[in-house]
Amino acid sequence: MARITEVQARLFNVPLDEVLSDAKHGDHTYFQLIIATVRLEDGSEGTGYTYTGGKGGHAILAMIQHDLAPFLVGQDATDVEALYEEMGWHVHYVARGGIASFAISAVDIALWDLRCKALGLPLWQVAGGAGQKCKAYAGGIDLNFPLPKLLVSIEGYLARGFNAVKIKIGQPTLAEDVERIRAVRALIGPDVTFMVDANYAMSVDQAISAAKAFAPYDIYWFEEPTIPDDYLGFGQIAESTDIPLAMGENLHTIHEFEMAFRDAKLGFIQPDASNCGGITGWLQVAQLAKAHSVPVCSHGMQELHVSLVSSQPHGGWLEVHSFPIDRYTARPLVVRDHLAVAPDAPGIGVSFDWAALERVHIEQPV
Amino acid sequence: MARITEVQARLFNVPLDEVLSDAKHGDHTYFQLIIATVRLEDGSEGTGYTYTGGKGGHAILAMIQHDLAPFLVGQDATDVEALYEEMGWHVHYVARGGIASFAISAVDIALWDLRCKALGLPLWQVAGGAGQKCKAYAGGIDLNFPLPKLLVSIEGYLARGFNAVKIKIGQPTLAEDVERIRAVRALIGPDVTFMVDANYAMSVDQAISAAKAFAPYDIYWFEEPTIPDDYLGFGQIAESTDIPLAMGENLHTIHEFEMAFRDAKLGFIQPDASNCGGITGWLQVAQLAKAHSVPVCSHGMQELHVSLVSSQPHGGWLEVHSFPIDRYTARPLVVRDHLAVAPDAPGIGVSFDWAALERVHIEQPV
Ligand SMILES: [Mg+2]
Ligand SMILES: [Mg+2]
Repeated sequence: MARITEVQARLFNVPLDEVLSDAKHGDHTYFQLIIATVRLEDGSEGTGYTYTGGKGGHAILAMIQHDLAPFLVGQDATDVEALYEEMGWHVHYVARGGIASFAISAVDIALWDLRCKALGLPLWQVAGGAGQKCKAYAGGIDLNFPLPKLLVSIEGYLARGFNAVKIKIGQPTLAEDVERIRAVRALIGPDVTFMVDANYAMSVDQAISAAKAFAPYDIYWFEEPTIPDDYLGFGQIAESTDIPLAMGENLHTIHEFEMAFRDAKLGFIQPDASNCGGITGWLQVAQLAKAHSVPVCSHGMQELHVSLVSSQPHGGWLEVHSFPIDRYTARPLVVRDHLAVAPDAPGIGVSFDWAALERVHIEQPV
Repeated sequence: MARITEVQARLFNVPLDEVLSDAKHGDHTYFQLIIATVRLEDGSEGTGYTYTGGKGGHAILAMIQHDLAPFLVGQDATDVEALYEEMGWHVHYVARGGIASFAISAVDIALWDLRCKALGLPLWQVAGGAGQKCKAYAGGIDLNFPLPKLLVSIEGYLARGFNAVKIKIGQPTLAEDVERIRAVRALIGPDVTFMVDANYAMSVDQAISAAKAFAPYDIYWFEEPTIPDDYLGFGQIAESTDIPLAMGENLHTIHEFEMAFRDAKLGFIQPDASNCGGITGWLQVAQLAKAHSVPVCSHGMQELHVSLVSSQPHGGWLEVHSFPIDRYTARPLVVRDHLAVAPDAPGIGVSFDWAALERVHIEQPV
């Protein structure tokens, strides 16, 4: 029995160096990190966390503190999967996705940290063990960058060792998107993998036209062309183009992923452990993906997902997101020979620099 | 221009007289009322609110205070539908259902209260105007009541003027559910409308067996036989029985309702304005229901839904829920000739007895 004695949660608003924009979430000037610490009777401690683009952090904090913590204290931390199910039912009426998924994710990751530490093993081994490395790409949040700046940013990714890049699309006209795509492909040459991400700025018809216009530029995947809820719309787009579709960052429950696999005709799935139920939720999606022969990729949170994507036999591409998380953790992401390498330390392999977070935290973001 | 100057939110934990239980949300000892007040430059004030069964209230409060209020202050309150859309996009990344739907609902209802007051009209007229009265049934949360107590409770509903009643099902065995249903039907006779609600305690196969076993007792609808996410499972159950299916209280986004209308073969839809986006969200569902020739009913919040269900030409049944809200509002629900009557006061017709709420509020519910 590994009895839980305390669940603590903290919120940090972490400023960005510059404004980052995408088509549907607007401008980001800071991001939110909500960190949950679970303590056991024997003194051991696990850390989990979740992210937001700047909204909802206080609600996630409140749910951990007022709903999940009272439920967890006194319980046995060992059976993580059972606690995961029970947390879901505990808040079910106000959940099925949304804030509850983020709050449960943070706690679940802390429970996995405890599990891996108790085993003395790194996450990539406990989660599946297929490997310690995975393919990785640099994902820009660059919709607002003028073209020259966009190209400088892409050059920076290549200089950092990436051989795959993704840009945001959803400019006022399709012609502008095509021009940016053309310029990026001209810059990177034919051998670099190149994805685009519309953050559901398009209707189904617009996305079909866009996919046709993008075809000459060898686009590896077209991410979230339209709203994630429209699974059948994704299916229609997929049937009208040879560019594989990708999504996952906006799906929170296993039922949503089931519908996506059934109807959306995806080439890639991108679950995010920070919002689909932590490591337990992510691995459930990975299992579904395997059954559907779809490579399991990730969204954001690369410092953690590197272990999860690497651990799976059908692991796909790790997104290396633009939020500068590496400044606030003990181990910046390692990229070697274009591959991301999972940490070897027992636990989830992510530990925070609390002093650095406290230094930058802004109480009232503008 | 009706400029918003303040959005205030308060949480009340309101104790219940006795423990109320259902199959999947367990025991309720109190409920949560989260009330949003929107104030305009001209001094006018609108009140909206949402409910929970005891969890999530602090998260809803936090989202209104930290995410929605800063977004709304300074905006024009007049175009409620535009604000509704914009609030949804503002918190989209942490939303699509869950806590965000509850928080937006509370604010949207406050904006409708302002709209109706500015027009000097009651909600039933502004929302549609088809009528001022609707059918109503008493919905028990009585899974834990021994049979004699269940029957006393049903007699109480009839004494209060209802000619329609609903009980919870999901006892350990189907035989026990059938015995309770048989006893209730024997008590109420053939002329009283009788519904059952499983709160998704059953698998699809169990629900099909149950529907067959319930058939002799003239059950008007079978509510949430299985998890609301399994739209196709609902469709399968519907095809195996003549008892119409009902759901809605766990659907939060218009996309979820679209999938329900497409796949779940429902006889009745039960949107809840406290969790599907307020009055704007509820009316969107009502419009979809009309297109699908499904009567629009409601879940909980009878003091408000009486105006909405009455206002629609295809209005169905109003659920009169067991939470004792009438003690805390100025106008207890009026039931006349078995019909519920919508209030005539300008606004949403619900105003709270703040002193009574403060008197009973428990800071740390057990
Ligand atoms: Mg994306
Ligand atoms: Mg119900």
